[in-house]
Amino acid sequence: MSDYNHILAAVDFSAAAEAIGARALDLSQRYACRVTLVHAVDYLLPLGYADDFTPSPVMMIDENELLEQSRRSLQTFAEKMGLEEARQQVLAGAPRQEIIRYAREHDVDLIVIGSHGRHGLDRLLGSTARSILNDAPCDVLAVRIREE
Amino acid sequence: MSDYNHILAAVDFSAAAEAIGARALDLSQRYACRVTLVHAVDYLLPLGYADDFTPSPVMMIDENELLEQSRRSLQTFAEKMGLEEARQQVLAGAPRQEIIRYAREHDVDLIVIGSHGRHGLDRLLGSTARSILNDAPCDVLAVRIREE
Repeated sequence: MSDYNHILAAVDFSAAAEAIGARALDLSQRYACRVTLVHAVDYLLPLGYADDFTPSPVMMIDENELLEQSRRSLQTFAEKMGLEEARQQVLAGAPRQEIIRYAREHDVDLIVIGSHGRHGLDRLLGSTARSILNDAPCDVLAVRIREE
Repeated sequence: MSDYNHILAAVDFSAAAEAIGARALDLSQRYACRVTLVHAVDYLLPLGYADDFTPSPVMMIDENELLEQSRRSLQTFAEKMGLEEARQQVLAGAPRQEIIRYAREHDVDLIVIGSHGRHGLDRLLGSTARSILNDAPCDVLAVRIREE
């Protein structure tokens, strides 16, 4: 077993993300290691949705604008959380796959995610957390998010 | 967010358990907090297995002997891992339920478990890890166990 060297904190911009960011910062101080804040933008809606008469929703999304907006939000989040020194990374795609891929390619040894549990309001996040637990190449810390 | 005060390390006595014990010890030092080593003995085999002529396997298990043996193994494990100061707790029942129950009743704020991933050889542990992630009242750290 070795010390953690590179923590990936997977955040959206909900209240839950603050618990994840705070724990990532706390651990990075205790392990004197770096943090990457990752936000995955899942803007790829299913294709085959449009017909000849209705424009597909995909066509109405300005991908670059969405990514740019996410970068600004991540910057604001980092500053708010005292994580200015963390690397910030916006990824385009399904959160589960993008987070796992990023972790593999960047020698991440701890992924910090949120978990709402089985009965959580946010079932998507719950399911993402389980998938990440299954597929992660490294340790995973699931921060319990308490519903208000 | 607050510091971790009570870490529960869920261990069997496999090689995987050493990675879990080592991480629990490491974290307990960084957070200056206590650790409880929990081993759940799932000796309750399904009933309705025996007929009038064949003794049920359940009847052949000496429960007290099994628990006593587990206590000795846990003691040996703690000494080997440098976790002599950790509380040791052998629980009788299904690991998932017993670990969750213990965590709830003893103000555990971090559960450390092993995770073999989706393709792990030990599918039971994988499934236990996912269940614990779902139901835990607190944060869960899944230590990635690498298969040899």
